[in-house]
Amino acid sequence: MADRTHKILLDESQLPTQWYNVVPDLPAPPPVPLHPGTLQPIGPDDLAPLFPDDLIAQEVSTERYVDVPGEVLDVYRLWRPSPLYRAHRLEQSLGTPARIYYKYEGVSPAGSHKPNTAVPQAYYNARAGARRLTTETGAGQWGTALAFASGLFGLECEVWQVGASYDQKPYRRTMMETFGARVHRSPSDLTGAGRAVRAEDPQHPGSLGIAISEAVEVAAGDPGARYALGSVLNHVLLHQTVIGEETLLQLAAVEEVPDVIVGCTGGGSNFGGLTFPFLREKLAGRMSPVIRAVEPASCPSLTRGVYAYDFGDAAGLTPLMKMHTLGHGFVPDPIHAGGLRYHGMSPLMSHVYELGLVEALALPQTECFAAAVRFARTEGIVPAPEPTHALAACIREALACKESGEAKVIVTALCGHGHLDLAAYDAYLSGRMTDEDVTDERLAPSLAGLPPVPSA
Amino acid sequence: MADRTHKILLDESQLPTQWYNVVPDLPAPPPVPLHPGTLQPIGPDDLAPLFPDDLIAQEVSTERYVDVPGEVLDVYRLWRPSPLYRAHRLEQSLGTPARIYYKYEGVSPAGSHKPNTAVPQAYYNARAGARRLTTETGAGQWGTALAFASGLFGLECEVWQVGASYDQKPYRRTMMETFGARVHRSPSDLTGAGRAVRAEDPQHPGSLGIAISEAVEVAAGDPGARYALGSVLNHVLLHQTVIGEETLLQLAAVEEVPDVIVGCTGGGSNFGGLTFPFLREKLAGRMSPVIRAVEPASCPSLTRGVYAYDFGDAAGLTPLMKMHTLGHGFVPDPIHAGGLRYHGMSPLMSHVYELGLVEALALPQTECFAAAVRFARTEGIVPAPEPTHALAACIREALACKESGEAKVIVTALCGHGHLDLAAYDAYLSGRMTDEDVTDERLAPSLAGLPPVPSA
Repeated sequence: MADRTHKILLDESQLPTQWYNVVPDLPAPPPVPLHPGTLQPIGPDDLAPLFPDDLIAQEVSTERYVDVPGEVLDVYRLWRPSPLYRAHRLEQSLGTPARIYYKYEGVSPAGSHKPNTAVPQAYYNARAGARRLTTETGAGQWGTALAFASGLFGLECEVWQVGASYDQKPYRRTMMETFGARVHRSPSDLTGAGRAVRAEDPQHPGSLGIAISEAVEVAAGDPGARYALGSVLNHVLLHQTVIGEETLLQLAAVEEVPDVIVGCTGGGSNFGGLTFPFLREKLAGRMSPVIRAVEPASCPSLTRGVYAYDFGDAAGLTPLMKMHTLGHGFVPDPIHAGGLRYHGMSPLMSHVYELGLVEALALPQTECFAAAVRFARTEGIVPAPEPTHALAACIREALACKESGEAKVIVTALCGHGHLDLAAYDAYLSGRMTDEDVTDERLAPSLAGLPPVPSA
Repeated sequence: MADRTHKILLDESQLPTQWYNVVPDLPAPPPVPLHPGTLQPIGPDDLAPLFPDDLIAQEVSTERYVDVPGEVLDVYRLWRPSPLYRAHRLEQSLGTPARIYYKYEGVSPAGSHKPNTAVPQAYYNARAGARRLTTETGAGQWGTALAFASGLFGLECEVWQVGASYDQKPYRRTMMETFGARVHRSPSDLTGAGRAVRAEDPQHPGSLGIAISEAVEVAAGDPGARYALGSVLNHVLLHQTVIGEETLLQLAAVEEVPDVIVGCTGGGSNFGGLTFPFLREKLAGRMSPVIRAVEPASCPSLTRGVYAYDFGDAAGLTPLMKMHTLGHGFVPDPIHAGGLRYHGMSPLMSHVYELGLVEALALPQTECFAAAVRFARTEGIVPAPEPTHALAACIREALACKESGEAKVIVTALCGHGHLDLAAYDAYLSGRMTDEDVTDERLAPSLAGLPPVPSA
């Protein structure tokens, strides 16, 4: 059998040394966040109790490139550059003339793209003198990443995990503890926010909104503590661009130019990380890929939400951000892709979408898991539930190529493995997985609950 | 911070194209297996109902090298060559002048070294016209590997999983099913062996011995079916030598020569796979590493067993093999490293040990998990319970170097990740893990139950 290459690897010396900030290359600047009380643009001082100066500066930066500190590069090199794979066996099983490439972030310590930002966040906080980091986590991907990164820089890490996940997914908690974090079931007795909820219902299953409130409350009340967020914000998307920068180098190494790029979107950091460097190339006229975001049909912020100012959390404690949102009061169905169950979309991603620079598509989870099982059986990797959405869209595109005979180059982001999500596969394989659609009737109340913000 | 390289990667074009057979290079040939009835050496005909001719030929081969078929290489390239890491951060945390390298097999589809032999076994069986493969599995690593490999070559895969594991570790079963296997709880109603056990106890928790009997019974009774074994046999160790051959190339690329090589031993295939190519170099006088096998104190076949003819399975159905054994009736404690809970050691490994070419050491599991947590927090990978034994021995050696000031080069095999073994970490971190020692009184009955084989 003729030799064919499956993995396109970069040497550690080829690891990108700068993150890419898409903002200065966009045809219009993104809308600024507003203070929820004054409705005035928030400034660095508003963010100082929660984030160190370096991250605040990155959050509002208009510089095109930001240097990756040497200490961060040294940690990245534990797993980066991550591999880009040519999916020969998936292509064969589909009978498509398309050439499919996937960028795999499951090789990281947390098994997903999350450490790409957890590491610099821990580094900048440690440099600014923080002693501990607090955060929330749902299924646990972000908490795991921050637990690992905090330990490397001598920071304590305290994670409030959504109660339902804490109870149902004990292995994620164990992984956070293995990396040295303290994990609390949220709502907890450690915060006013948690105690208030528990007073009403001692067995409350929790929510990301409550867990955020607890982590923020603790950070705001301790000068040695800071808060860390794993998606949505500009500096998070900035850090993730290392994914796309590497992918550009890897495709160039095999002399390929992408026709279509697909990724999944929850908060938007994995998608932005992969696609913004390609968007730079597209805006500069050096390539012209279709860039497509895939979201779950049960939480369709881009395809069914409105573009409006809304809160980032369920409780309404954060600054107001202009984004595609289903309303901060929207409670998505408990689909297996926990990382995509967010009512809003990153403001920067939302802005890019509003500018018409990316497309969006919503898919039901059974189609996604069918794609994932096909992928596992051909390529040998069991995907996390989130990137099953990207794979399903990738397969749709590849089958369209089979129809049309086009040999398109499709690039997708396999942003994590599913080793801790096998209960979802069991549900799919045993026929217990269902698809829930979101009716207009169900969306109406949460959209009606958007905060009133006068037009500028 | 100065750049330093963490990963030594090989290009797919550098993947070894031959497996290495250590037998012709040994100073004496290994003892042959005996028929349990006649006590005469078994021949190819005795094995033909269970294995295809190609594998039987490899089992008894005296050729130094065996070509890896192109179809197998193409599958290997999905994850091979696997990375060799320099453990800079572990070294720092230990304050050792030693240079520690670890070869990581957790990047494979099953998350361990097992696919290295599952893929060629499936390939040769498919080429010989088999329609399905049967096997047993305990915790599920081997079953997962064979499930994946069988699917690639169009074979059905049927796995009898030890009942206790089937009940307690549903995620491993789901992973096998995701790769397309049918998984049965053993003892099952599908075989005479299983029915006999269930007649006595319908809720019997099963054992590897019973599961082997079921898988062998089904294969022997169906001309279209064959049986596959994941360790112990010569052809399995042969396939695993791809690990050591790659490691030799990777160390050469950074101009290092190992002083000490440590690996964990259960059936012996991971250890033989890593070390036999180095043993070749040692026997040829090109290097002189100490080669050290590490086994659990609760199942110490090399350090506390006898070197004698014994059965490979608990029920006494297999040929008699001369090996280091605790007696086929020995039931190890339920330690977390399920892959090391085997009463015997691979005959070939046993022979090499008997020749004085490798050392052996037994370690308690709490020391191993302490090493694993230190490793996870510095290197970012959560090890499987089995290689925690190798890591603990590696750390002992590195701390000895700290005392002596020697800058030894230590190479170890991280043969799998622990993403599906986090319950073990929870037991360790919560203080529930204990160490069980094996008393002479406990060993006596199983050693007394060895089959009587007259000296040749």
